[in-house]
Amino acid sequence: MSYKVAVLAGDGIGPEVMAEARKVLVEVEKRFGLDIEYSEYDVGGAAIDNHGCPLPEATLKGCDQADAILFGSVGGPKWQHLPPDSQPERGALLPLRGHFQLFCNLRPAKLHDGLEALSPLRADISSQGFDVVCVRELTGGIYFGKPKGRQGEGETEEAFDTMRYSRREIRRIAKIAFETARLRKQKVTSIDKANVLACSVLWREVVEEVAKDYPDVTLEHMYIDNATMQLLRRPFDFDVVLCSNLFGDILSDEIAMLTGSMGLLSSASINGSGFGLYEPAGGSAPDIAGKGIANPVAQILSAALMLRYSLQQEDAACAIERAVGKALAEGFLTGELLPAAQRDQAKTTKQMGDFIANAI
Amino acid sequence: MSYKVAVLAGDGIGPEVMAEARKVLVEVEKRFGLDIEYSEYDVGGAAIDNHGCPLPEATLKGCDQADAILFGSVGGPKWQHLPPDSQPERGALLPLRGHFQLFCNLRPAKLHDGLEALSPLRADISSQGFDVVCVRELTGGIYFGKPKGRQGEGETEEAFDTMRYSRREIRRIAKIAFETARLRKQKVTSIDKANVLACSVLWREVVEEVAKDYPDVTLEHMYIDNATMQLLRRPFDFDVVLCSNLFGDILSDEIAMLTGSMGLLSSASINGSGFGLYEPAGGSAPDIAGKGIANPVAQILSAALMLRYSLQQEDAACAIERAVGKALAEGFLTGELLPAAQRDQAKTTKQMGDFIANAI
Ligand SMILES: CC(C)[C@H](C(=O)O)[C@@H](O)C(=O)O
Ligand SMILES: CC(C)[C@H](C(=O)O)[C@@H](O)C(=O)O
Repeated sequence: MSYKVAVLAGDGIGPEVMAEARKVLVEVEKRFGLDIEYSEYDVGGAAIDNHGCPLPEATLKGCDQADAILFGSVGGPKWQHLPPDSQPERGALLPLRGHFQLFCNLRPAKLHDGLEALSPLRADISSQGFDVVCVRELTGGIYFGKPKGRQGEGETEEAFDTMRYSRREIRRIAKIAFETARLRKQKVTSIDKANVLACSVLWREVVEEVAKDYPDVTLEHMYIDNATMQLLRRPFDFDVVLCSNLFGDILSDEIAMLTGSMGLLSSASINGSGFGLYEPAGGSAPDIAGKGIANPVAQILSAALMLRYSLQQEDAACAIERAVGKALAEGFLTGELLPAAQRDQAKTTKQMGDFIANAI
Repeated sequence: MSYKVAVLAGDGIGPEVMAEARKVLVEVEKRFGLDIEYSEYDVGGAAIDNHGCPLPEATLKGCDQADAILFGSVGGPKWQHLPPDSQPERGALLPLRGHFQLFCNLRPAKLHDGLEALSPLRADISSQGFDVVCVRELTGGIYFGKPKGRQGEGETEEAFDTMRYSRREIRRIAKIAFETARLRKQKVTSIDKANVLACSVLWREVVEEVAKDYPDVTLEHMYIDNATMQLLRRPFDFDVVLCSNLFGDILSDEIAMLTGSMGLLSSASINGSGFGLYEPAGGSAPDIAGKGIANPVAQILSAALMLRYSLQQEDAACAIERAVGKALAEGFLTGELLPAAQRDQAKTTKQMGDFIANAI
């Protein structure tokens, strides 16, 4: 089987952790007889420096020719003075999502055995563990809705954004949430603000319709304000959390932080034809970039998601996940996951990559 | 000094906790020589049952004639099948906010000494305490922006909402945030999503302008997604959190839950002429209504906020807050604030009210 992958390592810790993901993929290719051709392209701040814009034409063309995008992370203080549209994060990610119609963002987040103490939650809550997947709509809602802009002058000048959802957009993301729940704990919590937003009223209607085709899955609706609270008290009661674009942005980050181990979290952004962009949930972490201490696990798990969703190589994906599980179970960890007193046992970025590659 | 207060006790625990607030106000009137005339009106589910709508004309008229509204809480399972517009929460609160132009919502939330263990946060985080005021814009943004509705048919049918903010609207709420910070720890964290929303870009611009008049106050901007995370890791780094309507709805609830003691939190919704609506941050808690065990403190503290902001009786407000502080410091608490093993020492709603009234 031969595939093409566009590699967009980006800024900060992106290149370092990407190198480890590539190392692991080499072993996966050997073991599963895959032939993956990688092409590297500039993106984000690196692309601004080299080509004057965060998503150059050549990068987009390269992605067009690939079966999937393996994305590192973008952004950093160097480019923070730029206007929002030209900044690395927004200028690279939003156009990529729009261009490839990556309407579905999957963000798994769980508390790993033995790492419960990293969670910012009280011990009696975190000790119960949790395992949630956030299914976020990624190409609609207030992110892309038109009109968006400004009008008027002086104190009456106003800005406006439009939140917009069609039945079709809601239905396709809701289906994915129910399919996902079917393979897990058969529960979907759909997040909305139906007591205020017209979009949420339609959202609830369509989600109810989709639910009829999944009698084996329990559906509950929850207001976004209440969801931010319930996740703090009883995260273990959630399984699949279905969100619109904006609410998913907010809740998936809250859920990620609840694990206390952002360096372990990956995400998949996919479209209707199996094409996808795979990236760590954390950022470019410029403060630790270049020190060789960043955790490569999120990037490595992003490669696993890529194998699963875009390359249809479930066994290879599982092999990576098992290898990562082995590292975590053996306490083979980077510094940020260790209690202060055990930091001298911290593994480097490279050591983590080597261990996981060897375990494939 | 004589005042008129419209009392809208509402549903669930509303009437019970309101009775205790009234009891405390009687003592305050005596001690500070105030003359408050109370008029009671139906609102929420009670109003639906008695008059067919959650905010009857008579209630609105009564409020029009008052100096302030002391609000209980509305809603419950009995009215949940109604369409969103007719439900108690939305059908009463949104029109009241709109009618009286209550553009500023203040929600103080702090971790009380000795009650840190109630927080869902890890002990080493909650032990550092926190004390935050959320300043939320309450009459603009996507709640009230036009157009809002539906169009089209079949799978292309779509719903839309409009987020809209003018310089004037942003400026007046930002000023209140800075004034508030001045009397506290001189820090404002302004929440937005300026990497995606046109409204947030304007929001940031205007907040920067307002900040120039408050050189003694530190301003930081934070994206809403990042804010939900940072509040979990380091709530003690926040002082005044300035939010638009939707982001404030979400964050103020997250912050409230971080205290773990919703029954102690009150809120003020005020307009430019000192008129305001004062209500507990929690809901109508139908599950414990009528049992005499609900915590009346949030309602009592709402009365204190009313004295402070609408009746300009700062000393009277402080007297209530001191009396409440005394109850908490002496461990005079309702059941939900006590560890399971000490529940037999739980005070009733009435006992709490009596204690606080006596302490005035
Ligand atoms: C960078 C930003 C535009 C983006 C978003 O809001 O979607 C980010 O927060 C994310 O969640 O991937
Ligand atoms: C009931 C609802 C419309 C309301 C809001 O969203 O503002 C409530 O959640 C609140 O925060 O007061």
